[in-house]
Amino acid sequence: MTDDQELGITESKEHSTGEWYAEVVRKAGLANYGPEGMSGFIVTRPRGYALWEAIQDELDARFKATGVQNAYFPMLIPESYLEREKDVVEGFDPEVAWVTQGGYEELEERLAVRPTSESIIAPYLSRWIRSYRDLPMRVNQWCSVVRWEATETKPFFRTKEFLWQEGHTAHASEADAWSETTTRLDQYEAVYEDVLAIPVLRGKKPEHDKFPGADTTTTVEALMPDGKSVQGATSHYLGQSFAEAFDITFTDEDEDERVAHTTSWGISWRALGALIMTHSDDQGLVLPPAVAPEQVVIVPIWQDETKTEVLEYAEGIAADLREAGVRVELDDRDERNPGFKFNEWELNGVPVRIEVGPNEVDEGSVTLVHRPDGESAGEDRDGIVDAVEEHLETVYAKLYAAAEENLIGNVREASDRAELLGTIGRHGGYVQAPWCGDEACEAEVKEQIAAEIVLVPFEEGEDPRSSGGDTEPIHEGETCALCDDDAVETAYFAKSY
Amino acid sequence: MTDDQELGITESKEHSTGEWYAEVVRKAGLANYGPEGMSGFIVTRPRGYALWEAIQDELDARFKATGVQNAYFPMLIPESYLEREKDVVEGFDPEVAWVTQGGYEELEERLAVRPTSESIIAPYLSRWIRSYRDLPMRVNQWCSVVRWEATETKPFFRTKEFLWQEGHTAHASEADAWSETTTRLDQYEAVYEDVLAIPVLRGKKPEHDKFPGADTTTTVEALMPDGKSVQGATSHYLGQSFAEAFDITFTDEDEDERVAHTTSWGISWRALGALIMTHSDDQGLVLPPAVAPEQVVIVPIWQDETKTEVLEYAEGIAADLREAGVRVELDDRDERNPGFKFNEWELNGVPVRIEVGPNEVDEGSVTLVHRPDGESAGEDRDGIVDAVEEHLETVYAKLYAAAEENLIGNVREASDRAELLGTIGRHGGYVQAPWCGDEACEAEVKEQIAAEIVLVPFEEGEDPRSSGGDTEPIHEGETCALCDDDAVETAYFAKSY
Repeated sequence: MTDDQELGITESKEHSTGEWYAEVVRKAGLANYGPEGMSGFIVTRPRGYALWEAIQDELDARFKATGVQNAYFPMLIPESYLEREKDVVEGFDPEVAWVTQGGYEELEERLAVRPTSESIIAPYLSRWIRSYRDLPMRVNQWCSVVRWEATETKPFFRTKEFLWQEGHTAHASEADAWSETTTRLDQYEAVYEDVLAIPVLRGKKPEHDKFPGADTTTTVEALMPDGKSVQGATSHYLGQSFAEAFDITFTDEDEDERVAHTTSWGISWRALGALIMTHSDDQGLVLPPAVAPEQVVIVPIWQDETKTEVLEYAEGIAADLREAGVRVELDDRDERNPGFKFNEWELNGVPVRIEVGPNEVDEGSVTLVHRPDGESAGEDRDGIVDAVEEHLETVYAKLYAAAEENLIGNVREASDRAELLGTIGRHGGYVQAPWCGDEACEAEVKEQIAAEIVLVPFEEGEDPRSSGGDTEPIHEGETCALCDDDAVETAYFAKSY
Repeated sequence: MTDDQELGITESKEHSTGEWYAEVVRKAGLANYGPEGMSGFIVTRPRGYALWEAIQDELDARFKATGVQNAYFPMLIPESYLEREKDVVEGFDPEVAWVTQGGYEELEERLAVRPTSESIIAPYLSRWIRSYRDLPMRVNQWCSVVRWEATETKPFFRTKEFLWQEGHTAHASEADAWSETTTRLDQYEAVYEDVLAIPVLRGKKPEHDKFPGADTTTTVEALMPDGKSVQGATSHYLGQSFAEAFDITFTDEDEDERVAHTTSWGISWRALGALIMTHSDDQGLVLPPAVAPEQVVIVPIWQDETKTEVLEYAEGIAADLREAGVRVELDDRDERNPGFKFNEWELNGVPVRIEVGPNEVDEGSVTLVHRPDGESAGEDRDGIVDAVEEHLETVYAKLYAAAEENLIGNVREASDRAELLGTIGRHGGYVQAPWCGDEACEAEVKEQIAAEIVLVPFEEGEDPRSSGGDTEPIHEGETCALCDDDAVETAYFAKSY
């Protein structure tokens, strides 16, 4: 244990969110800032990386079950490749890290450290795809990318290098490619909601905020407790622009040559940022059971004369849970008292604590305590496995319910400029407003209150929650909340991470 | 299927090993060369990456079961960090790829794309380690590294960027650190032998060929069928040089400040190169069952009038095997005949083929065929799961036995220069010879026949096979095979990948 961990959380989530977040990340042992001279880079420590591994495992299994294969492409991309899709080079050029020297030699052509890999994957899809029989073709890689943004570092939210996965697929038709796009968005939504206990909104980005070169960028957005939105993951229907630029064609069943439709989709470790920010509190990290490195910690409470029996009892419980596949830690350290241990495991985000002392041994019982609300319950020692599994489900349900309450209570409406700016300014959250589709109207909001359009529904009148129903669509003659033009769609404005 | 795959292997493993290897890699869909202007880089296709994932899974589980945690450190390292350990900068400087521009700006300090990460991990070990209670500390990362070598590209064997894992640990004593070093070497050996069916020699590198800054570099070496050795993985006892350069110290139980002992250890996708090279043949890839993406392929053989019953029978077998956890593929393609399918699955390295036709349906039997030797056997449909599992074990045993025979038959002795050069020249393989310990004597061998010392035994007189016994140690008065000085140890010379 380092000093960092012994101090406890001193900042307040409500009053100093940024400082509190940084403190939780550091003291729960998730990440450190990069070395001097490397602003924008972080070191992901084992407890942080384990969370990323949990997300990887969940998504990778879903991907593989739906026809995706992993592959690996070079991390360096020749500048001339980036330039082959003009939107890509315009979109990423300002934030590329360039390798210009190899050993003692200057390179003839600069090589980009990949900011995203469409430009190097597409030429290979072109080579591998010959006939309709080769389609759909789906490859995915788990890797890191670099984007040289000069903003303040915020671990997992804003870093120059970040870990992600990027999937790249090619299809025979627009319908197939669009279905792929939404399949991946569904999977991201499922992982946010079912695994990370974070409800999301789903929709598409406005035209001017699409992925460079994409036909449509779809997104899942999560609302943080401070009222800001996080772009949780994106799935792009790329249309035929990349296929045309990189010559991804195939022979169809009639022996005709056709251009493929492609997609790409990715989730980054920003998901960890959303996870930490959503559930954690002033005692430290709070984790849903599906990703917690330890789901249960057993803290035995003994005096010298009861130590043997209490420990033996605790070990028996630990063994039963372990055998049932529960990730359990028995904290039998001599040099720490139970109060210290409680605080430390709370800081580390263990969902369920089991306390056992002489009373529990006598009664054949255990005491279970939930993170984050401290609710406790007694359970029989017999049937401990079932009881623990139920409590873990309850903890998940509590976390999801709290996040859902925050989301539902923070989607508001506005019909004019004053209402739009005022509502976001006062409450944060999402504000839905009629919009003319012109970037200039969004620019005004950005400038005044640093909010933007985070999504528009797929279909006008659709609720961006997949569990939601319809909402009131734009009606005939309605005008944009920001100008006098006719409104064409409902935009969701929010401040954003 | 691309044209690549339809052509079959045309080169000969025996007569044109290099071309044959490249052809197998390409036609079995394992990898392609990188794009134009990117010599030294490869694209790892799904069938190749799946093999790497299998190795990762095997090793990662072993690491985690023995106290290792995964983490992630920045891919870029400031030049000044590399310079803090002088041997490291001297060792890697000639082959570093340098990032010098971020976006539109020149960086003040060049950043190395990591060639290895001691220099950026050590400062964090220094920060995280305070007391003996923090030790041992073990972190590992799976990532890619870049070494800008200007040699000919050979997929998996020689590439400028390669995938690997690098483990980094700190310990309170030399004994603990040395034990860590050998634990990891044992795990590499186990994965080579038990998973990849490749027997290895184990030992240490000569002083002049150690990892820069290391006290001792240990290695496992595999002998390829063409008589060359592959350095399969290395595990370094770094002594205290990194701990001193990066201030990795701890307070011991007596409150005294002490310097830690560190290790690092890694295996790269070169293991894939060794895997492909060792077992494959002129029909294509040969894979041991533990890593084969498909362990069994079922090829049904039907006429129009028997198609329904044969397919149903085949599907039942596939379902039984799948349920038992066997990775099985049922090749029911209409547009290909059985002969084409046999060839294709042989090219792809599936260990066991099951053929079923009307005869098998009538008899309630199946025909199993082994890769690589084509041996076939009939088995009852009932009990197919047990039968397949036995056959998979037999295939592993055949592959291991063949590789072991190659190894055992190719360790020879030499006592003077002529014998040493002549034996390697004629037979390849390993030649053990008495050596004075002077690099100059090895340099001569390098120059004349491009062979080098790939290992020396841990203890003089020890057989470098862990299943081996003792061998004859250097005797009093024996001289170096290459000069007149006294021999101090037995060196194993070989040509090397």
